[in-house]
Order: sequence, then structure tokens, then C-alpha cells
Amino acid sequence: MRAMLPEIKELIASRKKRFIKKVASYFEPADIAEIWSDLSSEEQLVLFNAVETKFAADIFEFLKEDQMIDLLNTLTLTRKKEILNEMSPDDRADLFATLPEQETGKLIPLLEEDEQIRTRELLAYKENTAGGLMTTDYITVPEQVKVGFVLKEVRNKAKDIDFIQKIYVVDKVNRLKGIIPLKDLLTTNPQRKVQAVTESPFVSVSLDMDQEDVARVFEKYDEHSLPVLDKLGRIKGVITVDDVLDVIKEEASEDIYHFGAAAVTDEYLSANPIKVAQKRVIWLIVLALAGFVSGSVLEHFSFLLSNIVTLSFFIPILMNTSGSAGTQAATVVVRGLATGEIRLNDIWRVIRKEFLIGILMGVIAGVITALRAIILQGNVLLGYTVAIAMIAAIVIATSLGGILPILFKKLGVDPALMSGPLIATILDTTTLLIYFNVTMWLLWRFH
Amino acid sequence: MRAMLPEIKELIASRKKRFIKKVASYFEPADIAEIWSDLSSEEQLVLFNAVETKFAADIFEFLKEDQMIDLLNTLTLTRKKEILNEMSPDDRADLFATLPEQETGKLIPLLEEDEQIRTRELLAYKENTAGGLMTTDYITVPEQVKVGFVLKEVRNKAKDIDFIQKIYVVDKVNRLKGIIPLKDLLTTNPQRKVQAVTESPFVSVSLDMDQEDVARVFEKYDEHSLPVLDKLGRIKGVITVDDVLDVIKEEASEDIYHFGAAAVTDEYLSANPIKVAQKRVIWLIVLALAGFVSGSVLEHFSFLLSNIVTLSFFIPILMNTSGSAGTQAATVVVRGLATGEIRLNDIWRVIRKEFLIGILMGVIAGVITALRAIILQGNVLLGYTVAIAMIAAIVIATSLGGILPILFKKLGVDPALMSGPLIATILDTTTLLIYFNVTMWLLWRFH
Repeated sequence: MRAMLPEIKELIASRKKRFIKKVASYFEPADIAEIWSDLSSEEQLVLFNAVETKFAADIFEFLKEDQMIDLLNTLTLTRKKEILNEMSPDDRADLFATLPEQETGKLIPLLEEDEQIRTRELLAYKENTAGGLMTTDYITVPEQVKVGFVLKEVRNKAKDIDFIQKIYVVDKVNRLKGIIPLKDLLTTNPQRKVQAVTESPFVSVSLDMDQEDVARVFEKYDEHSLPVLDKLGRIKGVITVDDVLDVIKEEASEDIYHFGAAAVTDEYLSANPIKVAQKRVIWLIVLALAGFVSGSVLEHFSFLLSNIVTLSFFIPILMNTSGSAGTQAATVVVRGLATGEIRLNDIWRVIRKEFLIGILMGVIAGVITALRAIILQGNVLLGYTVAIAMIAAIVIATSLGGILPILFKKLGVDPALMSGPLIATILDTTTLLIYFNVTMWLLWRFH
Repeated sequence: MRAMLPEIKELIASRKKRFIKKVASYFEPADIAEIWSDLSSEEQLVLFNAVETKFAADIFEFLKEDQMIDLLNTLTLTRKKEILNEMSPDDRADLFATLPEQETGKLIPLLEEDEQIRTRELLAYKENTAGGLMTTDYITVPEQVKVGFVLKEVRNKAKDIDFIQKIYVVDKVNRLKGIIPLKDLLTTNPQRKVQAVTESPFVSVSLDMDQEDVARVFEKYDEHSLPVLDKLGRIKGVITVDDVLDVIKEEASEDIYHFGAAAVTDEYLSANPIKVAQKRVIWLIVLALAGFVSGSVLEHFSFLLSNIVTLSFFIPILMNTSGSAGTQAATVVVRGLATGEIRLNDIWRVIRKEFLIGILMGVIAGVITALRAIILQGNVLLGYTVAIAMIAAIVIATSLGGILPILFKKLGVDPALMSGPLIATILDTTTLLIYFNVTMWLLWRFH
């Protein structure tokens, strides 16, 4: 697409509206949105006004938020009306939610009356809940009808409504009674009662369910769409699986950023370095202050260091290996908590497992480090000392790495905030304490 | 669901087949699969044989692989046939792919003839490609037909085929010519030619496309389903967005595990600790050996350490802060590469940004550390030394943290393998070198 940019620019420059419309229809709206920033705002406007309203609205929905806002400001009132009314209700509500209230107040009156009510309703839900994810475009039918009636409803409404794969059967007060798969509707005699094709019980989510939990329900039941119900069981909207795709991606990114002690940023490449630094430095200061503790441990045991200078050679490897072992354990547990494989009451299983893993890995790392002490420093006692310290440090590392994220979650804190760097910082202190105590008890005594 | 386990066990013990079938139908297959391991293998069999074939096959598809295999071995030949033929072709192929070839060879002949051919074809595709993700259950129609013909086709086939949201128009040699959305089919006069409702051009993926790339195509075009074409443009299958959900989750997990230097494990809680330790320890040995380098740096500069013992107090905080800063930068870049926000030719933008961020954060961390040296050690020269070392170390840390994942990707290595612990280990050495060189140049000279 980007390769064709010169031709596209030339085409737009020709101002042949009909020709532009025809050529644009060969492309996908997403592809046009991708090269949007390569067009001047004048070119954007010519292209946007040349194509059909539906196609234009599709392009619009693929744009980034700031691009949407810029474009909206250059459109005529008529075109603005057309586009906003054509947009899918959930995407439109998402856009309005990012605008200042004053701006939204000006745009809502441009919508058709029923769309206005809908939009205000959608805007009332929190962004990261089921209510914020759902669309209000779906078909409902009453309980006492025949299959033929439902089929007619679908035919009538399919022009305006994107989602027709399931039709929702509701009672007089809009409580959801069952779900009709379109597939079954098409293969059933129109004379039969709707009950013949209605699925009940069905899986649903509640309006205020967190989007992460919504994603889990989708994964668990392997559904393509789920109805959203209020507390009284009335249907308020429908979430389709493609909306959940973004949620899963977002949540994974958030976990990764937290776990790397990097602040969450929406856009990295276009972000101001000062702002990025501001966000990251807070964590760095916390970690640096925590690092003072390990510095104090060193200070406390400085008599050992000044007497046996070889001791210090093993500080980096001990700190590094235990930090890494702790990060490994924390990684698996943080991810397990996020995917739901590990639950809070699995804490004892995790501790037992990580303790064992710690012993196995500690022995191997301990032997390697001891060999270094014995071969390069020619000091067998030092070898024993670092080996014992290494085993103890790694056992503590894997155990703490496994426990701390679970404790965080128990306390209601995002377990991913128990980041790799934070674990490593905590373990620096425990590792140094272990090292010096083992030294005192073994090396110093027989020195 | 789990709360009702005693009642369910009692129900099964009653052996009232019709009653079991009725009660089971109130539950979702996914819920029954969730409590599967809480039932004895006898209970499983009674329940499984009591319910309808379609419902049983649904439960079966939600089971874990080992549960599937165990259950399959206890079924009668007739039931086995029923279930295997009822399964969706892609789930069945996935199951067969995990079994030993001999076993698969015995099961395939149980399928109906056309299902056998299909299964053999699906088994030929690699698991993590479009071919491995797709289903072969979809509807095709020739080019020269009317809308009414297509409608009739859909009605005839919808009983056996789950995916009917799109119908594929093919030429005589099965090359995909266009796509008909079911929605448009339902709202169009049956007398019209199929071209009136056929979308072309359309987005498609190729048979051998990597599943991660497939997921990106879904995200970019916001599609619910995509046709899979071979090199000649013939349609071979269809991928629906719910299959991509698992891919996105898997790929995110893989990245997180790599980045935490933790080996990828399918199941954590049920895994043998020895096996987990085996996988993790390889990384730990690599990191420990790399840690020898930093040990050697310390050894080389031991004359400094034995003369100025206070120097060692700042080693943990310097290593820790630079390691964390490097991890922060690497986290953002690894994730950016995975989501596609950062591309290989963005390397200079990343370097510039991380260099600036490094200076900003370095100054702040440097001042904090210098204050510690001045206040607690009362040594202003030491304060300058650690501050300068900190700034240089953090600039190197953020820059390397940003560059290394991109270089990894350029070399064709998974950038997430440039893990937090690996970055921290590399930075330990650079940080110590910087620290001692600054000391030599400033503190030692004026000592």
C-alpha cells in the first residue's frame, strides 16, 4: 500500500471525484487508514469526501484518535452528520469518551434521535467494563412468535445491524430468555414456534464485569459473542470476540510493562522522552532507595570485605544468579495468575514447587561458582562458602519469586507490579545477608 | 459448578441415563470439562455415554489433551466413531497431531471417507501456520448462480457446517473470486445474480503464513474470519477470530517467559519440578558464566577495593539501578517489536530516545546516590565519582536495552530472548567497568 503512495497522491491531485471513489474501493479501509499520516490534510479531505459514506465511516473507524479528531474538525456539518450516524455505536462512544465533555455535547445533537439516547447510555459505562466493550446493535424478538417471524425480523434489520449471528429472545420487560443461533433459524420450518430453536441456558456477562474477566469468559466457553445483562437480567448489549482481541493484547502489554518496571505508555515512538523518563524514573528511584539497604548490608560487613578482598569478587555473580532465579519464578507465577492457571489458593503448591526447583538449581549454580573459587582463587574454604551461600540464596530467590506475586494479588495489587527489577532488588539484600552470614560462620571462623 | 460436585456425583451414581442427560443439558460443555478431573474415570464414562453425541463431542473438545486420550481409550468403538466424526475438523486434527503416528493411523479409518481425506490434509500443515489454524468446514458456490441458489445451499449445509457467516465464491478450479456476507444474502432479492452481493477485493492469508502474522492480519483489518489460500489462490480453509484469541495469548505468554528468562512450559502447576528446573537452569548457567566476567572486572580492580573499602558499598546500587533501567528500555522495545509498533528501521529513533531518557534518569539517580555518599560517608569526591558513574552507566543501560532486542530481531533471533536477566548481566560488567574507570580517573587521582 505504502509503495503506491505517489500514484495515490497523483490521483487525489487530479480531483476526479468519481475516479478517486472507484480506485479507493479496490483497497481495504484499514490499508487506507494505514497511510493516512502520509497524506496532507487537504489530500485527506479530498479522498474522504470522494468515497461513499459507508466506506468513509469504515476508514474513519480505523484511524487513530488524534487523526479522527483532526479530520472531524475539517468536515462540513453535513458530512460530519453522515459519518457520525454511520459509525458503529461502540466505536462512536469510544471516540466521544476521549473528547472533552464540551466537544461531545456539540457532537451528540448531530445524531439521529434514537442514536443520541443510545450514545448517552453507552457513555455512562466505564471504559474497561463489559458495558464499555459492548455494542447496542442487535436483534431481539418476543417469546411467543414463530420462526418465520424471526426470519422476517432478521431480513428487515440486517441492513442496519451488523451483528445477526444470534437473535435474542426477551420477555415483556426485556429480560433475556434465550438465544437463537441464526444457523438454526435458517434450517428450521418457519411454522414452528421459536422455542424449537432457542438455546437456554446460555452464557452471559454482567454490565459491570471487568474487561479482563470478560476475556476469560470468552476463552473458557469458546464463544463468538456474549450478551451483556444488567442486574435484573435485561439485555443491554452484545460483545463480540473481536472486541476481546484488543483486550487480551492490551492486558498482556500492561503486564509486560509492569513486569519490566517500565511505565505503561500508549505510544512509544511518538512519545516525548521527558515524559517517558518521568514515568520510568519513579520506579528507578524506588529501586535505588531499596538499593541503599543492600549498600548498608555491605557497609555493616565491610570488615569482612577489607580483610578478605576475594569475597567481593563473588558478589556480582551471587546477586545476579539469585536475581535471575527469582525473576524466572516470578515470571511464571505472574503469567499464571494472569491467564488463570494459578489461583490464590495454589500458594502452597507454588511454594513447594519453587522450593524444590530452587534446591536443584542452587546445587548446580553452587558447584559452578565453587569451582571458580577453588580453581582461580585456590581457596577450598571459599569454595564451600560461596556454594552454600549460592544454594541458600537461590532457594530464597525462587520461593520469594513465587510467593510475592501471589501475596500482591491477595492484597488486591496487580501481581505484575512485583516486577523483575523489584524482585532482583529485594533479593540483592537477602543474598548479601546470606553470603556474609555464611562467611562469618564458615570462612571467617576457620580463616 | 464445582460447588455442585456432590450432587453431580450422586446423579451419576444413580445411573439414570435419561435423567443424567437432562440435567447435563442445563450446563455448558465448558463447565463440565472444567470439573472433569474431579470425576473418577468410571463417572466420566457414565456421564459421557448418557448425553447426546453432539453435546458429548462439545465436552470432549473442551478437555485437555491427556484427558481426551484417556477418555478415548475407554470408549466403545461405536461411541468413538460417533465422537470423532462429530468433532470439528480443526480440533480433531489438533488432537491427532499430538498422538503417536501409529495411534493416529488406527483412528483415521474410523472417520467417514471424506473426513478421512480432510484430516490427512489438515495433518500435513504445520501446527503454527495458517494451515494449522484453519477449519475446512465452510460453504463454496460457483460464480454463475443466483442469490436464491446460494440461500438454498446455506439452508442445506448449515446443519453440518458451523461457519456460515460468509460464503465463498469460487471458479471451476476452486480459486477464490469473492466473498458473500450472509447478512447481505438475506437482504437481497433471490432473483439477483450472486455478483450483486459478492465482495471483491477481499483480505486473505496464505497457507504457510506464521500464526503470529495471521493474528496481526486479523487485528489490522478487524475481521471476524479470513479465507486461507494456497499459492494458486485456491481456497483451502477458513480461520475464525476465536482461533486467533489463543494465538495472541500463547504468543504473549511465550514473550513473557522468554523475557523473564524462564523456559516456556505448557502447564506449570502439574509439571514435574525436576523438568522445570532442567529447563530454567540452562539460562541460569549461561547467566552465571556471564557473571564470571563481572567477577573478573572486580578482581582486576581489587587494589582499588582493598584501598577504598567504601567503594564497594555503591556496587549493588549501581548494578541494580543500571540493570533496572536497561530492563525498562528492553521491555518497551521487546513489546513494541511484538505488537509491530517498532520496526527494524526505527533503530535510530529508539537509540536517540533512549539516550535522552538515560541522561534524564541518570542525573536524578546520580544525585540521589551522590547525596548518600556525601551525607553518610562524608566524602564529596566519592559523591562526584558515583554520580558520574551512575549517569554514564544508566545512559549505556537504556541505550543497550533499546538496541539489543532490535539487533536480535535483525539477526533473526526472538527479541524476547534478550531477557531482563540477560540485559542485567551484560550491564553488570559495563557498569563495573565504568565505575572503576571513573574512580581511577577522579577519586584515585585526587585521593
